Amino acid sequence: MNNFNFQNKTAIRFGKNVIDTELHDAVAQFGQRVLLVFGGGSIKQSGLYDRVRDALADLEVVELSGIAPNPKIDSVRAGQDLVKTHDIDVVLAVGGGSVIDAAKVIASSKFYDADPWDLVVASSKRYEIAQLPVVDILTLSATGTEMNVGSVISNPETNQKLGTGGPNSPAVSFLDPTLTFSVSPWQTAAGAIDIFSHLTEQYFDQTPNDVTSGMMAGLYRAVIKNAPIALANPNDYDARAALMWASTMALNGLVDVGNTNGWTVHPIEHELSAYYDITHGVGLGIMTPRWMQRSLSAETQPRFAQFGREVWGLTGDDATVAQGAIQATFDWIKSLNVPTTLPGVGITDDTHFDAMANSAVTVGHLDQAAYVTLQPQDVVALFQAAMTDDGFVK
Amino acid sequence: MNNFNFQNKTAIRFGKNVIDTELHDAVAQFGQRVLLVFGGGSIKQSGLYDRVRDALADLEVVELSGIAPNPKIDSVRAGQDLVKTHDIDVVLAVGGGSVIDAAKVIASSKFYDADPWDLVVASSKRYEIAQLPVVDILTLSATGTEMNVGSVISNPETNQKLGTGGPNSPAVSFLDPTLTFSVSPWQTAAGAIDIFSHLTEQYFDQTPNDVTSGMMAGLYRAVIKNAPIALANPNDYDARAALMWASTMALNGLVDVGNTNGWTVHPIEHELSAYYDITHGVGLGIMTPRWMQRSLSAETQPRFAQFGREVWGLTGDDATVAQGAIQATFDWIKSLNVPTTLPGVGITDDTHFDAMANSAVTVGHLDQAAYVTLQPQDVVALFQAAMTDDGFVK
Repeated sequence: MNNFNFQNKTAIRFGKNVIDTELHDAVAQFGQRVLLVFGGGSIKQSGLYDRVRDALADLEVVELSGIAPNPKIDSVRAGQDLVKTHDIDVVLAVGGGSVIDAAKVIASSKFYDADPWDLVVASSKRYEIAQLPVVDILTLSATGTEMNVGSVISNPETNQKLGTGGPNSPAVSFLDPTLTFSVSPWQTAAGAIDIFSHLTEQYFDQTPNDVTSGMMAGLYRAVIKNAPIALANPNDYDARAALMWASTMALNGLVDVGNTNGWTVHPIEHELSAYYDITHGVGLGIMTPRWMQRSLSAETQPRFAQFGREVWGLTGDDATVAQGAIQATFDWIKSLNVPTTLPGVGITDDTHFDAMANSAVTVGHLDQAAYVTLQPQDVVALFQAAMTDDGFVK
Repeated sequence: MNNFNFQNKTAIRFGKNVIDTELHDAVAQFGQRVLLVFGGGSIKQSGLYDRVRDALADLEVVELSGIAPNPKIDSVRAGQDLVKTHDIDVVLAVGGGSVIDAAKVIASSKFYDADPWDLVVASSKRYEIAQLPVVDILTLSATGTEMNVGSVISNPETNQKLGTGGPNSPAVSFLDPTLTFSVSPWQTAAGAIDIFSHLTEQYFDQTPNDVTSGMMAGLYRAVIKNAPIALANPNDYDARAALMWASTMALNGLVDVGNTNGWTVHPIEHELSAYYDITHGVGLGIMTPRWMQRSLSAETQPRFAQFGREVWGLTGDDATVAQGAIQATFDWIKSLNVPTTLPGVGITDDTHFDAMANSAVTVGHLDQAAYVTLQPQDVVALFQAAMTDDGFVK
């Protein structure tokens, strides 16, 4: 195990209706002037918006709505204007990963006097400046942003979708599984695949250890079991709770301690959603089985076999279990009723494959830092493999 | 899953030789006057004492040595005198669970003007007062105290061994697996059993959930696998690292979120070590399989079967797997070369069984809060069952 530092200060408030009793004080501890960040109208339809405004009735609340999936830098720019103009004390994000991701960068942008896209391109700048505290109410189990310092922001002008870090994870995260009862089957599936992919990015590493491997295996099994339950019965509290807490545990820094390698499938998928604005989790579900097939080799077979045994419960020799685990991954994704090919999400030709592959390798350092290193032509081959389901038992 | 709050601010510095580069600043951030708390002479023999004093050469260091296993309230009283007399800024604990447990209560005692035994008997008092920051260097993988707020303190005058909580977990914990290379086989085994027992106290709960169950299963497997490796080769870094990180993860609050029940075997064992001063982990190893046998019923069988499958990899029907898991637990403990009966640790008659059973039920609320509730006569029966290995295949 490599040496590591770990600390995560986010305070979690998990459970039914906790916002009604605890939100006010969690926000007001940081000040009176609140920037409320949210997406479209879904929180108004669900009644969550009214509950939040009621809880904060005695505070000064400024609103920034319209944060889109794959949040755009223009939303951050609008937020920067508001936090400066109104001298905001605390940012309250109500929504899924996109809303919280944008809120984190907006929280930094108050203390930056130029275009906040600079802060995305060079995360290091954010560590040199202050950051407003962020409180969030999570409405989608997926990205893990509720307990980490990361954000992913898109710039449509440049076709860039970049990850950025900051000094602080959210100060307080409210996780109420009932708020995800209304999440659509599509977003439920995409969220579950996103969690699965976060685990995969960390599980497949050149210096794994028994502690984090075992913890990840448990998280994998929780997601694999509960995603179909939540799809079949959207109001199943325990299934929604398992997905929500698994999303948080999968990406709060705990399960990659001691790891060596960077991520692979996320940088590749970011190109797809940057160019085509597809749903991130669906893109991950398309690319992950192809990445597994290409990464399986004599060298990696023992790790894929361990994956097959402790995650999928397969038995047999290493070669059989490793292959079976990849097929099981494909089958599980397909069972969630999402497309499993690029044409299934409307990407029907290879126009941008070279450009996307070059960018993925550059941004993700895939030729140096990946578990199995990839050159641009390897990434193009992955895109090509994703044009059909050939190679998998259907 | 029950509603819960979770936050853990401890900063972890994990790995080889990290103290040499990071200890000074980690301590000095809190001030110049340091109380160095440690046990016997082992840290002097190992050279760790000199490394610590070298790192803190420019700080004012006052020493409190002689903290014993099952740390005694007299050590805390001595520490209280020192932190007040020298107006200490930060407590640095170097040792195993006993040293760190004592240091946490000493850190509170600076702000209390009466006998610190009061703070152990009534933890609530500690939440009303301040607490000095605690930095620790862990030398034994076992209790998890390095990332939680708990302490266990003994009072030989009253035959009491009580758990106590406080407002803060350690500010910074240094976890260097190489510092455990010199831990004896006896203490290595006892530490591993302690970790196993912490998991067991939390795994067997009336409201389990898939996320924490799966994470615990992974931690169990890491301990079951690596304890024998560390015994066979004390300098195996990866095995020592797995035990160390598993000890921290097993009891930092993460894996019992959403749980309902209190602990059972620990309160029972605390009576044994309060009356007989036996090694805590060894006592747990004696009592755990008996507790499992007595707790297995039609109602609990599904949980024991899940334990058998995801922890021990057993297959078959529930009854077979549940029974097999209990035998496997006994076999694993026995394989670590520790006594598996009370006579094996010198407890050869039932003189104190009634008094210990009454106290365990009262202190642990075993008749109300336990996974399977126990009356005093049930605890006596557990002690009696532990007089021989009858009931297990040997």
